[in-house]
Amino acid sequence: VKIALSQINYHIGNFEGNISRIISSIDEAGQQGAELVIFAELAISGYPPRDFLEFDDFIGKCYQGIEDIAKARPDIGVIIGGPSRNRTGKGKPLHNSAFFLNDGEIRQLFNKTLLPNYDIFDEYRYFEPNREFSLLRFKGYKMAVTICEDLWNIGDNPLYVKNPMDELSGENPDLIINIAASPFHYEQSQIRQKVLQENTDKYHLPILYVNHVGAQTELLFDGGSLAMNGNGSVVSELAYFEEDLKVFDIRELIHSDEPKSKITSPGKIPLIHDALVMGIRNYFRKLGFKAAILGLSGGIDSAVTLVLAGKALGPEHVKAVLLPSAFSSSHSLKDAVDLARSMGSPYEIINIEKDYQSMLDSLDPHFNDLPFDVTEENLQARIRGMILMALSNKHGYILLNTSNKSEAAVGYGTLYGDMNGGLSVLGDVYKTEVFELARYINEEGEVIPENTIVKPPSAELRPGQKDSDSLPEYAVLDEILYEYIEKRKGPAEIVRAGFDKATVDKVLRLVNLNEYKRYQTPPILRVSSKAFGMGRRMPIVARYLA
Amino acid sequence: VKIALSQINYHIGNFEGNISRIISSIDEAGQQGAELVIFAELAISGYPPRDFLEFDDFIGKCYQGIEDIAKARPDIGVIIGGPSRNRTGKGKPLHNSAFFLNDGEIRQLFNKTLLPNYDIFDEYRYFEPNREFSLLRFKGYKMAVTICEDLWNIGDNPLYVKNPMDELSGENPDLIINIAASPFHYEQSQIRQKVLQENTDKYHLPILYVNHVGAQTELLFDGGSLAMNGNGSVVSELAYFEEDLKVFDIRELIHSDEPKSKITSPGKIPLIHDALVMGIRNYFRKLGFKAAILGLSGGIDSAVTLVLAGKALGPEHVKAVLLPSAFSSSHSLKDAVDLARSMGSPYEIINIEKDYQSMLDSLDPHFNDLPFDVTEENLQARIRGMILMALSNKHGYILLNTSNKSEAAVGYGTLYGDMNGGLSVLGDVYKTEVFELARYINEEGEVIPENTIVKPPSAELRPGQKDSDSLPEYAVLDEILYEYIEKRKGPAEIVRAGFDKATVDKVLRLVNLNEYKRYQTPPILRVSSKAFGMGRRMPIVARYLA
Repeated sequence: VKIALSQINYHIGNFEGNISRIISSIDEAGQQGAELVIFAELAISGYPPRDFLEFDDFIGKCYQGIEDIAKARPDIGVIIGGPSRNRTGKGKPLHNSAFFLNDGEIRQLFNKTLLPNYDIFDEYRYFEPNREFSLLRFKGYKMAVTICEDLWNIGDNPLYVKNPMDELSGENPDLIINIAASPFHYEQSQIRQKVLQENTDKYHLPILYVNHVGAQTELLFDGGSLAMNGNGSVVSELAYFEEDLKVFDIRELIHSDEPKSKITSPGKIPLIHDALVMGIRNYFRKLGFKAAILGLSGGIDSAVTLVLAGKALGPEHVKAVLLPSAFSSSHSLKDAVDLARSMGSPYEIINIEKDYQSMLDSLDPHFNDLPFDVTEENLQARIRGMILMALSNKHGYILLNTSNKSEAAVGYGTLYGDMNGGLSVLGDVYKTEVFELARYINEEGEVIPENTIVKPPSAELRPGQKDSDSLPEYAVLDEILYEYIEKRKGPAEIVRAGFDKATVDKVLRLVNLNEYKRYQTPPILRVSSKAFGMGRRMPIVARYLA
Repeated sequence: VKIALSQINYHIGNFEGNISRIISSIDEAGQQGAELVIFAELAISGYPPRDFLEFDDFIGKCYQGIEDIAKARPDIGVIIGGPSRNRTGKGKPLHNSAFFLNDGEIRQLFNKTLLPNYDIFDEYRYFEPNREFSLLRFKGYKMAVTICEDLWNIGDNPLYVKNPMDELSGENPDLIINIAASPFHYEQSQIRQKVLQENTDKYHLPILYVNHVGAQTELLFDGGSLAMNGNGSVVSELAYFEEDLKVFDIRELIHSDEPKSKITSPGKIPLIHDALVMGIRNYFRKLGFKAAILGLSGGIDSAVTLVLAGKALGPEHVKAVLLPSAFSSSHSLKDAVDLARSMGSPYEIINIEKDYQSMLDSLDPHFNDLPFDVTEENLQARIRGMILMALSNKHGYILLNTSNKSEAAVGYGTLYGDMNGGLSVLGDVYKTEVFELARYINEEGEVIPENTIVKPPSAELRPGQKDSDSLPEYAVLDEILYEYIEKRKGPAEIVRAGFDKATVDKVLRLVNLNEYKRYQTPPILRVSSKAFGMGRRMPIVARYLA
């Protein structure tokens, strides 16, 4: 029996698009001899559908789509993820289900047992967990159909008190099917392979694993669907960051005796690079936009953003706007022009000095002779933000935000100014990682001017300003932030790890005090295990470490 | 035996403040003869602590605080909510617990069984549900200690498959204690009383119910703690929107035979009014700010916001800024001046025309002779937003956002312009309700100029503009929005309820397309059962009804 794994870039709520893509994939698999095609978790709706799941109309459209798919190719079996209605009259109104389709109908349902409800996951918000277990029998094989998290409750300190494979393995399945929606972060593909191997270690069964690919606003799906034999050998792997389809012979997979695969990775920076390019590209395509605009300062954040956007959209579709003021250094303007030219991106120069002076004149009678402070710095950033938004509105560009994670963490940025944008490209990339990305981009020839990489970071909002005037050096800052944000360590633990207490206290205080700014920032492409946004939920009015 | 119910305004993560307030309340209850004092759910941390719960340091501080409280008054029993560590090695790392303190120590723990995970609630993100049931025995009484949602799984279509009181009632308790964190919306106090009465109907036991009071950013807690006898009679009720403490004799409560109370309400608009005033006041006080600033246009939204802020902070602490342009009508300026004067709030007038023209001149070479459109409208709104933020930065005001729920729903507002602010006062109040609030405010004498209430709503961003040029009349719009947002009805259902199909499709499309704007709006004081913000989670890049 031949089985196809189909890895597709879905679009949330775009039923017409998803259904036609799914049916064309079944056709293609059929041409390659597949008798069963496996799609990802909640494929019909796209993942995560979030509170659309609370609309009965939306659920109805999911059912209708699945029935359409069943009817389209009754000759081929299909396993596909979608929400199903809980008909017991008790518990949450839905299940997160794998539908088995054959002969033109929904034949069997397998509901998800373990519902992730941490970080970016909210599944217990919508779904009732499964409590009944049965296998799928297809052409003489017995298959344990599981959904993503169902295989993840393995190892020490289990997050759930039950383990669905412990129930299913008693019925002697021949293999495990796992349909997933497993969002990317730069360590996730390695963790995923490790978890699947822990399952083959324990159950000695082959696993067919199907993931999403593509971006859904901030969430990036890297694909990497695979077939693993009972020893934990990755017998075949689908593409990363692209749609893919592969067909396997089940018998061969079951009889494969390749030894367990080593876990490898292309490395953090190349992964982040590819993920961000995909994230930008998908954001624009799914919203129906072609072109981006951004403020190009001559600094490293906007430079890297321009390059990534150019790769995603074509450099000719990325408009760079240089917005110098009296505080801008001449080399900044030159670095920015050099980059736009070397990229082949259109650029314009709009000096903000006149508008800045006009605003200062208007405000002067209302400032009560108070000295120059962060107000005037913010004013410059906001005039720039306003100009960029005006061009975005007039010409139909989406403004890309160029802030990095270090700045977002400590609030080093201006609300309604440089924090503007439809999408934050680098908001989950620490400043030190932005430098690494720049070096990586320049590996095959200088794209980003060397001067942009080596000069000390500065916001250039007052004479001679440097980031290090008000913040610790990024090498130190980023390590403290990582311990606090990704690792959730407290101040005492971080100090014990070798950092200065006053610095740690200051940094943690800045992070917590600036929650109000992050509340209003654009969605951030998520590349780490703990990004600002939907996966990190903090009170604003609070006084912990603040 | 005398029991005290203590209803306190906690501050998330402010352990020092919370602990000292709790201990002073125990002292006060002791002076009134109480032998047991009951505090709310997660009182030690404030509610909701959100992802601070993932920090072991934070949990440690909760334990430390509870131990300090136990030691402070060993002579008085205390029931208080806090997170506790799950020590079974399986499941989520915490429980949501009621700690029973006596003789200077933690004597017993009662864990929450039913974990709300819908709307604004995320409790399954952190907590493992309880599976073991026992009573509290205190001075000869047996008490069933439950936590908020534990009593809510009653009536048809239960959201959970188990019911903790079904387990506990088998041990013949004398009464039920319920510690809660039950956020306000304008129907919630009635629903709450109904749910408690459904419990007395079923279990025939008195209930002591203790809620939070005060605001935590967007979440408002109205208090209304109470003692109910076994018939469902509200024997005593604590204050709404204020801290309170009351002491009851348990024997009297158990032997009370008053019949079931009728459920009453002060009415939607008075409740919303009081809740918003409390929300503004708490936001400023807990952040350590005294004064607000807002743009006063002469329209009804900013007028109502000014009045509410004046009541919350004192009118002298609310700075009104009038920002006329060439498109502003003369009556708007006059109405705004009249209101500021009648309120006794300081005001300034800053004409934006010069800065607007300066920006247009700068942008002209980059607009490619394209006609006047939404770009220029947004530009005016953004210049106003920039001026308000500059004054906010220079003088230490918090900018109040004045957008209403109808505008936020359909995206009728400018990002980084009139959508600016630290807090949205009216973002959960539909336009038609804003009118009702204005009428309510004027009941005891005209505060808001009649002209502001009766003139047709206009953004005044182009000549002769009216809201109804691009939107349905608010009376129709708001009903459609309510069906879609609060009731989660689909387009076909709403049309069946009597609305024009083209209008419904247009409105729903606008709501969904403008999710990207709402993503970047300030926190919104929540007064309805479905507010924009943490309780409504939608994808941005999606194509459902859009």
